[in-house]
This record gives sequence, structure tokens and C-alpha cells, in this order.
Amino acid sequence: MALDVDLPIILVIEDDDEIQGLIEDTLSDGGFEPAIAASGEEAVTLLKGRTTNYRALVTDIGLRGKMNGWEVAQQAREIDPEFPVVYMSGAHAADWASKGVPNSIMLEKPFAPAQLVTALATLLNTGTPTT
Amino acid sequence: MALDVDLPIILVIEDDDEIQGLIEDTLSDGGFEPAIAASGEEAVTLLKGRTTNYRALVTDIGLRGKMNGWEVAQQAREIDPEFPVVYMSGAHAADWASKGVPNSIMLEKPFAPAQLVTALATLLNTGTPTT
Amino acid sequence: MALDVDLPIILVIEDDDEIQGLIEDTLSDGGFEPAIAASGEEAVTLLKGRTTNYRALVTDIGLRGKMNGWEVAQQAREIDPEFPVVYMSGAHAADWASKGVPNSIMLEKPFAPAQLVTALATLLNTGTPTT
Amino acid sequence: MALDVDLPIILVIEDDDEIQGLIEDTLSDGGFEPAIAASGEEAVTLLKGRTTNYRALVTDIGLRGKMNGWEVAQQAREIDPEFPVVYMSGAHAADWASKGVPNSIMLEKPFAPAQLVTALATLLNTGTPTT
Amino acid sequence: MALDVDLPIILVIEDDDEIQGLIEDTLSDGGFEPAIAASGEEAVTLLKGRTTNYRALVTDIGLRGKMNGWEVAQQAREIDPEFPVVYMSGAHAADWASKGVPNSIMLEKPFAPAQLVTALATLLNTGTPTT
Amino acid sequence: MALDVDLPIILVIEDDDEIQGLIEDTLSDGGFEPAIAASGEEAVTLLKGRTTNYRALVTDIGLRGKMNGWEVAQQAREIDPEFPVVYMSGAHAADWASKGVPNSIMLEKPFAPAQLVTALATLLNTGTPTT
Repeated sequence: MALDVDLPIILVIEDDDEIQGLIEDTLSDGGFEPAIAASGEEAVTLLKGRTTNYRALVTDIGLRGKMNGWEVAQQAREIDPEFPVVYMSGAHAADWASKGVPNSIMLEKPFAPAQLVTALATLLNTGTPTT
Repeated sequence: MALDVDLPIILVIEDDDEIQGLIEDTLSDGGFEPAIAASGEEAVTLLKGRTTNYRALVTDIGLRGKMNGWEVAQQAREIDPEFPVVYMSGAHAADWASKGVPNSIMLEKPFAPAQLVTALATLLNTGTPTT
Repeated sequence: MALDVDLPIILVIEDDDEIQGLIEDTLSDGGFEPAIAASGEEAVTLLKGRTTNYRALVTDIGLRGKMNGWEVAQQAREIDPEFPVVYMSGAHAADWASKGVPNSIMLEKPFAPAQLVTALATLLNTGTPTT
Repeated sequence: MALDVDLPIILVIEDDDEIQGLIEDTLSDGGFEPAIAASGEEAVTLLKGRTTNYRALVTDIGLRGKMNGWEVAQQAREIDPEFPVVYMSGAHAADWASKGVPNSIMLEKPFAPAQLVTALATLLNTGTPTT
Repeated sequence: MALDVDLPIILVIEDDDEIQGLIEDTLSDGGFEPAIAASGEEAVTLLKGRTTNYRALVTDIGLRGKMNGWEVAQQAREIDPEFPVVYMSGAHAADWASKGVPNSIMLEKPFAPAQLVTALATLLNTGTPTT
Repeated sequence: MALDVDLPIILVIEDDDEIQGLIEDTLSDGGFEPAIAASGEEAVTLLKGRTTNYRALVTDIGLRGKMNGWEVAQQAREIDPEFPVVYMSGAHAADWASKGVPNSIMLEKPFAPAQLVTALATLLNTGTPTT
């Protein structure tokens, strides 16, 4: 189901089970491999671990734990300044202009699954390749 | 089938029944909710009504009634200067440079359904969120 | 399955049979019509022939024959300076910055099929219409 | 004072004498050659005449005569779909979203002369060269 | 020296006297009107005051007082989500990817005065006009 | 005349003495420090030498020696995939679409000095849109 065996792995932080399932299906249909983290803290640990080659972050803003999505993205960018970031929110969308990182995408709920796929594809297709 | 209950509603003006069905299927597959208007006049009435939260306009150029797609888009932009606009045409595509509104997308027929979905997603993903 | 009878025809150069099948399915699902060339030389012949209205080029870098993907794209651009170009590669991706043509997209393997569709749609949706 | 003898000629429509002088100085300092038209009608006649190779249009919105800046730009684009267009206005700036042409720049008064030079340079530097 | 009497006022935070003078001259030459704040705290007070119509913020990162440039920009964006922001730094430039706001420009020292003028002009020329 | 002592150094390849003087003046006025190479071969040697921190390349296409501007830019990008590149040409401008490198700017002669300064500033400023 992939072009060259491995699927690009996308780290997703979404604590609502129903939406989580929806996102997993959406990403799989697009040919991505979703990896779900339960909280911002867990996501940062996974990113720092560097065992898995995550290609992008998709995160809600209001999360379990102390860390919110804005903070997770900032930490991701401290590890890799070019890491693709997609935020999702309803209530917090207006804060993107002051709390978001440069070159990120904010998806305002409600959004269509196609918007999430296009957002990821656009960010992954941009930028100078490194391999 | 949506992320957060409601689907983003897209106002579509296409008077050819066959193409209309195709566009409805394409948008639904992408997770949008198409709302079809039969003419430019009807579309403008719906936009001015402000009862429904239309998120974007997809319009053919040659339409029933007196209004053409260029004019509908202009009226939509008078109501909301940032309203996403996607035009579709075969014969009139070359007029986009003089009759289209800024930051709109012109799909030249024949185009792939994926182009319509990507166009909408791109326009909806761009810009500073307001909620 | 198209909007206005004909599907946009995409010229694809991929000599690995398995990946070729994957790309054909991906493009068809998006509503494009893939046309496969076996080598760079064959692709250039097809482009110069001008019998078919190819709308874009999707090419691997390492190809059968003497021509590589960089060279095919350059020839395509000599015929049409605005021809949309999407490259695919794992090993050669880093050469895009010195060997790619302007306004092209480089997909680093592994990439999700959605990335290929979005890349094509984005390039085809951009630019001044010519009809 | 140019690179290769001729200066790029910019067609300017501004009927206020004081601002006209300011724009002429600004453009000359940047190395452009301003050509002033007194009205929209005169500008369109000059563009259609095709004797002079105008490289871009800079226009106010409220003009002498019947034609306003929006209409002049539309006519310029009917002649050349890629013609660079810069509008200037105070009162009419908000209409750009519904009356402007795609890929144009709207300078809201008050603006700095540097903004006009950067706007022209940006539009002229973009796009596929034709010589 | 302006087009329409008032010059666009740019709020600048730079505590090094020598560089401050250089920036004032650069902005004035471009036709802007620089307004210097001595610290981040002062700048935020001025922005909240809403007496002066500041059109953009230009800020160093390391500032007098407790607030750094990253924080000033965030506060500016809380007041106006579309406020143009230009950062300047040598030592802190690499933090822009995690601490900068979306759609901002980071000027790495050493930079040419022309880069500052172009950065401001580009940000001011982009976006939907509001008057 | 710089912001932080050193001026950004721009490597320029232009063998016409008159134009060379013009470019040197233009770049100096903008606050850059031009460094002139007499041929493509000399430029590549300087870039490979890595003694001087060149920030960008400005090159004519037809050059003394065997190397043309297209080839110099390719070699510059092999050394640094993100190296800013500005080409200048009259006769060869149309070849940019097939021979230019991605994310480069082609200045068609005749162009205004302001266009060269804006082109360099845009490429050097991080986060500046390129369309």
C-alpha cells in the first residue's frame, strides 16, 4: 500500500476516541501510517527518542496532561526546525496567529478529512529534500 | 463522517445535471457537504441570507439566469472579502486573469476530481483562523 | 468518471512494475488518466509527438536507458516552459536542488499516494489558464 | 542608469499632480522609467497601441474620466493575461477582494514609496521569462 | 515625503544606539516613519494604547527588561492577529522555527538594510486591505 | 553602513565592465558587499574555497570561459542546496524553465536595479513568500 515499502509515519495527538478513529482512517486511506500518542508529554518523548522516523505532527490543542498542542509543536521544532506541523482545533483556532509556529497549518473544526490529507501532503511536498 | 459533527458546507453552482452529480460525489468523498444552487441569483440569495455557514463557493462560469460565475464570485466577496472561490470552466478559463477575483482558483476542464478537492482544501487551509 | 468526458492525461515514467501499478491505481482513483512510458527516451518521443495532450510529467530519477529523470524533465520544459513536473526518488532526492527544474515538486520515497495526487493537483491548479 | 540601456517602462495613472511627482521620483530612483497617463481611457489606448513595451501598470482607483482603476486593469489583462498590476487607494482598498484581478497587489494609502518599488519588483521578478 | 501625507509608522525595538540610528535612517529612506521603543514592555504598552496606528513591528530578540522579542510579537498578535512582524537577530535566529509567529520574517545578522525594507514592504503589501 | 559590522557578501559574475560597475553600485547602495568573479570557473573556485562566507550568487548566463551561468548555479547548489541564486540575462531568459535551479530568480534584461535588490533581499529573508 505504499510507494517503497514503508509508509510515512505521522505522529497524531488526539485524545477523543471517536475523532482519533476518524483521523486514523483518513490518514490510512491517504497512504500514511498514523501513530497515536495519548498526550503531549508522550508525543515529545517519542519525538526525542528518535527511534521512529516521524515525518510530521498532527495535534489537537487542548490535550490531556499539562502540555497543550502549541507547546508540543514548539518542542518538536526545537528538535527539528523544519518538522511539519498541523494543528486542529475549534475553540483555540484564533490563537494560531500568536501561538503557532511559522510554516504550520491550522485546521479549524469542523474540517473535512480531505483538508487534513492535503495539509500533510502540502507540508511534506515542500522543502529541500535531505536524503 | 466528519471531524466534529458538522461537515464544511460548500455552495456549488452547476446546472449540468451529470456534472452536478459528479461534483456532489467528489465533495462528499472528501468529507465536504455540497449544497447545490441552480443559478447565480439563487446562490447570491443564499449567501446573503446568512442562515447557512457556507465555507466556500464552487461555480461554473456559464450559468442559468443572467448572472455568470464571475459576477457571483464578486458578490460573494462583497459579503466576505476572504470567501474562498473556485471556478470551473472550459471555454471561459482564459478570462480568469481579467475577470477572476484575487486568491481564487480556476479549474480548466477537463480536470480531475482530485483537483477540485485539493483546490478547496488549499483555500480553506490558508489564512488566519477567526474562531 | 471525469468532469467533461476526458480525463487529464499524466505521463508517468516508472520502470519498477510494482510501483508502476501502484501509481496507476493512485492516479486513476484521483480521476487522472495515467500513460506509462518505459524509459526517458520513450517519454521524450511521446512529448515531442504532440499527438496526445499530456498535462504533466511524473518521473523516477533512475531510469532504463541513458536518460535520467532530470534530463527528461529538462527536455519537457524545452518543449513547454510551464509543463508541470513531479519527480520521485529515494536515493537522488538531495540532487533536486541542483538538478531539478524551477517550480517542480520532488517526492522523497517513501511517500504516501496522497502526496502524489496533491502534488499533481497543486501544479495543475496553479498558473494562468490557456484555453 | 539601467542594466542594458533601456529602463523598464511602467505605465502610471495618477491624476493628483503632487502624488504623480512623488511616484515619478520613486520609480526613477528605483531604476524604472515612469510613463504617466492622465486617465484610464488614455492608459487603455496606450496599452492597445502596442508601440511602447510597458512592463507593468500602477493605477489609482478613482480616476478622471469614466473608467476607474479596476476597469483599466481588467482591460490590461484582456490584452495580456500576465500583465503586472499594482493598485493604489485609500478609500477603495477594501474593494480589491471583489474588484481586483488575480495576482495583483493593492497598496493601501498611506504607503511608503519603498512599498511601491518592492511591489513592482516582486511582480516583475515572478513568472516564466518569455525572451 | 509620503503618498497621502502620513507615513506608515513602524514600531521598532532596538536597544543598541548605533544600530537604532541605522534602522531609523533605513526606514526613513524607504519612506516609513520609525517609532522607537526602548524595551519590550514599552512596546506592548504602546500597542495596547491604540492611540497611534502602528503598521508593523521590527524587533531585536534580546531586549532590555524581562520581555524578549518573541514575547513582544506574541502579544502584538494577540491584539491584532494579522500584525506584520519582523525579527532581527544574530544569536537567536535559529529559534525562529520554534518561537516565531506564523507569517513573520526573521532577519539574520548581518543583514543588509535593503533586506529590512523589503521585509516590511512585503508584509505590508500582502493580505486583504481593511479600509 | 551595515547592521552588525559585516555586510552580507554577494558573489557576482558579470564580465561586461559597465554592467559590473552598475551592479556593484546597486548592491552597495542596498547595503550588500559585492565580490566580483571574472568567470564561472573563478566563481566555483571561490565557492569551493569556503574561506569567504558568500550569502548569494548573482550571475549572467553567457560568461567568459567554458562554464555558463546555469552550470555555475548547479555547482553552487551541489555545495549548498539552499544557496540563493539570481540569474540575469536577455537572450537566455527563456531557458530558465529548463536550465534554472529550483527557487531561483531570473531577471530579464532590461531590469531595474531595484529588481536585483528585491530579488536578493527576498531570497535572503527567511520565511519570505516567493510567489
